[in-house]
Amino acid sequence: MGVQLTLDKLLERAVDLFPDRELVTKLPDGSTHRYTYADAYERICQLAHALDELGLEAGARVGVVATNHYRHFELYFGPACSGRSIHMCNMRLPDHHFVHTIDDAEDEVLFVDPAFVEKVEANADDLDSVDQYVVLGSERDIPETDLEPVTDYESLLADHRTEYEWPDIDEDTEYGMCHTSGTTGLPKGVPYTHRAMYLHSVMGGHVDANAIGERDTVLPVVPMFHANGWGIPYGATFVGAKQVFPSIHTDPESIAHLIDEEEVTFSAAVPTIWLEMAEYLDENPEVDISNIDRLTVGGSAPPESLIRRYDEEYDAPILQGWGMTETSPLGTLSTLRKEVAELPADEQYEYRAMAGFPVPGMQVRVIGDDGEEVPRDGETMGELEVRSPWVTDHYHNRPEENEHAFTEDGYLRTGDVAVRNELGYVDVVDRDKDMIKSGGEWISSVQLENELMAHERVAEATVVAVEHERWQERPLAIVVPTSGADLTEDDLESHLAETFPDWWLPDAYEFIEEIPKTSTGKFDKKRLRDRFDIVLEADDGEEAER
Amino acid sequence: MGVQLTLDKLLERAVDLFPDRELVTKLPDGSTHRYTYADAYERICQLAHALDELGLEAGARVGVVATNHYRHFELYFGPACSGRSIHMCNMRLPDHHFVHTIDDAEDEVLFVDPAFVEKVEANADDLDSVDQYVVLGSERDIPETDLEPVTDYESLLADHRTEYEWPDIDEDTEYGMCHTSGTTGLPKGVPYTHRAMYLHSVMGGHVDANAIGERDTVLPVVPMFHANGWGIPYGATFVGAKQVFPSIHTDPESIAHLIDEEEVTFSAAVPTIWLEMAEYLDENPEVDISNIDRLTVGGSAPPESLIRRYDEEYDAPILQGWGMTETSPLGTLSTLRKEVAELPADEQYEYRAMAGFPVPGMQVRVIGDDGEEVPRDGETMGELEVRSPWVTDHYHNRPEENEHAFTEDGYLRTGDVAVRNELGYVDVVDRDKDMIKSGGEWISSVQLENELMAHERVAEATVVAVEHERWQERPLAIVVPTSGADLTEDDLESHLAETFPDWWLPDAYEFIEEIPKTSTGKFDKKRLRDRFDIVLEADDGEEAER
Repeated sequence: MGVQLTLDKLLERAVDLFPDRELVTKLPDGSTHRYTYADAYERICQLAHALDELGLEAGARVGVVATNHYRHFELYFGPACSGRSIHMCNMRLPDHHFVHTIDDAEDEVLFVDPAFVEKVEANADDLDSVDQYVVLGSERDIPETDLEPVTDYESLLADHRTEYEWPDIDEDTEYGMCHTSGTTGLPKGVPYTHRAMYLHSVMGGHVDANAIGERDTVLPVVPMFHANGWGIPYGATFVGAKQVFPSIHTDPESIAHLIDEEEVTFSAAVPTIWLEMAEYLDENPEVDISNIDRLTVGGSAPPESLIRRYDEEYDAPILQGWGMTETSPLGTLSTLRKEVAELPADEQYEYRAMAGFPVPGMQVRVIGDDGEEVPRDGETMGELEVRSPWVTDHYHNRPEENEHAFTEDGYLRTGDVAVRNELGYVDVVDRDKDMIKSGGEWISSVQLENELMAHERVAEATVVAVEHERWQERPLAIVVPTSGADLTEDDLESHLAETFPDWWLPDAYEFIEEIPKTSTGKFDKKRLRDRFDIVLEADDGEEAER
Repeated sequence: MGVQLTLDKLLERAVDLFPDRELVTKLPDGSTHRYTYADAYERICQLAHALDELGLEAGARVGVVATNHYRHFELYFGPACSGRSIHMCNMRLPDHHFVHTIDDAEDEVLFVDPAFVEKVEANADDLDSVDQYVVLGSERDIPETDLEPVTDYESLLADHRTEYEWPDIDEDTEYGMCHTSGTTGLPKGVPYTHRAMYLHSVMGGHVDANAIGERDTVLPVVPMFHANGWGIPYGATFVGAKQVFPSIHTDPESIAHLIDEEEVTFSAAVPTIWLEMAEYLDENPEVDISNIDRLTVGGSAPPESLIRRYDEEYDAPILQGWGMTETSPLGTLSTLRKEVAELPADEQYEYRAMAGFPVPGMQVRVIGDDGEEVPRDGETMGELEVRSPWVTDHYHNRPEENEHAFTEDGYLRTGDVAVRNELGYVDVVDRDKDMIKSGGEWISSVQLENELMAHERVAEATVVAVEHERWQERPLAIVVPTSGADLTEDDLESHLAETFPDWWLPDAYEFIEEIPKTSTGKFDKKRLRDRFDIVLEADDGEEAER
């Protein structure tokens, strides 16, 4: 019973029992790369030897700046199983945040997709911890670059032995880290332990959770730098399922074709993807997604109409999941407990549109202002708190935050405002008020506000989320110009564009005379959200950069 | 992530999310007891307080001599969650074995069904560790007894508080113990940790294992003193499933009616039960078992004809499981991996009749005489070795056996002879040669042999398993009388009956001139089994005592 819950067990099971199962990548150039768990295993062993040769000590972190593909998959295991840690870097962050995450993790090697070399290059002077850059490709894939020293991934692996004796690792050892931008300020590092992800992977196959089994073919559209690709690559490896990686091809058309060609049964993405895929399929009825057994959405809540549409048109139930970077990520899932499953289909949608039911192994509670659990009446709001072997128990390098983020009895304070009903379902009614979730990515309203208010002709400014047809939420800036100042949207947009990526920029600006305040003098965002309760229409042009 | 994997988490989940789910017991008198997880929880808390009042220290063991019923269920949690350990006693063992198990576990309190009071009484003088007897019933259920001190369970619980603050328990703490009679000599104690059973419970809900979920209604026919009732009561509690306990009503007719009335979806038993239930259902077509979704059999291999029959007549797939007391118990399960599921139904039976495929989290290998894994060709035999977080890493009080039972890298040597095929399925082709498995219970041939050879007119004797239509295996005694002696079956039967329970007694006796020996001078049981390759017919009379 002393067997440690470590990630090499996941990998070894896949290779032992399902050596011939395929891992398929649609490469950036549109071609398809196929190989098996047995093939991947040999390269993972080579990668581990290469890390040895680079002199990486146990516990050292390697950063990965990459889309979803087979090399990224190898990086999910090589560092972890050999006693190092993979830092999954979010390249969509503004530069100063991106640099902070690598700095904070002290990444010693940085593995970078060719497409992101330019972004890394632009920040290389600030990446003090990085001793080696590795471009994820073969020699001919390396773009001209000033990165130094730099090599390519295939050369790094070449000539190393294809077997490796994994060290005995204590299950409480960190195997990976993601940074969360889910709160204000600089992104915070969430360390993950082998034990946490092992348990999360077992749970992912539970019939009362995602029920990922060996017969599934999974397609994680969700980026692998987002909370372990929502845990799917690890969970699928544990059961030996076939996996399909889309690399840059995450547009609805490509995803639909991948589902068709590779006979995908399970996929996971933000609602936007499924919304747009449905539109594509309407126009292209020859594309067949009938192998899909179920879809999980996360990142933001799917509209009920979307769930109905997939039921009716594709017999593909959409399950909503709630989780955070801090929760590995799965916390709740809108599975239908028996009492709900026995309701008429029409009455089930109410439950299916909720954040969901705690997955096995996850303890949740909703705590009111009085510090007690709120009644399970579906109405009384409180803060959602969660506890599980796969919920982090600290942030990296954040002693102060660690004092506030966790309760004495080990629950994480999520910052989400939630209600529960009498059947135990959780619904998140209001997120951490300072964040905007656009197409599954966080935008910090506080950061935008600070930059707006740094403009000389702005007296006060705040940013709130408004509903958006395509991206679920987008930022709306509400600005009070300095007295008599001449201030336009264009002024503010060009000002913000100096600091933030395009997709962070507010979709609309409202100029008002005074921002309402709460009793404690803070901006009253709730009143503002009520006042500007608008729905923005999809506008492809504006979002083309994403 | 520091959350400990302890059994209070299982219980708390059920009570938190499924307080109204039912636990149903068909009581010995034929009436039905119903209550909910919320009700059970209150009594489990009362039980924990009662153990406190009895002065039981952390780690103390309580023995339970009981069939499957709600009080036994309470005993699955009360001692464990309050830091003690439940010792699940097998009352079917011969007296001297039964006494040994209690002595070996040092049970301080013994909880006994009224029906087994007589057996305990007969051995009470030898139960030195027991300070308190508790009859599992209310005051009026206590039979006249010499046990001292004795109380009844309901009086023990009465007046205690219905809430209890579970202590913080390290997950590596023992929560329970079973004794295995699966080898020669005295039964060996297998200690289980909280962590092991927590993990076994999560795995039990895995879609690639038994997939026990909250929508199931489970009926463990397998006794709760056999390897945690094959783990079902714990696994079902973890998901909050409705549970049905049959107490003494494990005859096929009662089981069929329970399945019908309580809408059971999942059940587990030895093959004999399902064989006989099919016969009962043939004659009683009004009994409806259509809610059954799947059945697990274990203890011995089900005949292929039985699997076919349940497919064809009841659309209830039978899954074969392999496990041992040492493995908590689940090791392999004859689930259909994708490649098999895609075969024509008729070709699937070959796989479904095997011991099965390793469940998620279970590592298995078959080791040949050269110490290497045998080829996965479905033919080459070797010893089955298993490793998992829920496989025990030692026997209680058996330092010598512990040296041999485990490999250096932590695998348990099962003593089972197995082959593997190229898809990874395990088939057990020969069990530990000294054991006979009758209706799911072990009979030690060595014990019988020793007793036979103790008879003054026996020169040599051996006992082997022969196939039996109803009980799968029964003992056949092969005896060489001393020269010129007059020796009959009756002589031997009455001799053995002095020591062993009726159901251990051989079904047949063969008198021969010499027992063949192996090259090392041991009885060549293989040759004997080949020579006496007979099939015994079902004979209800002979087995009526069971």
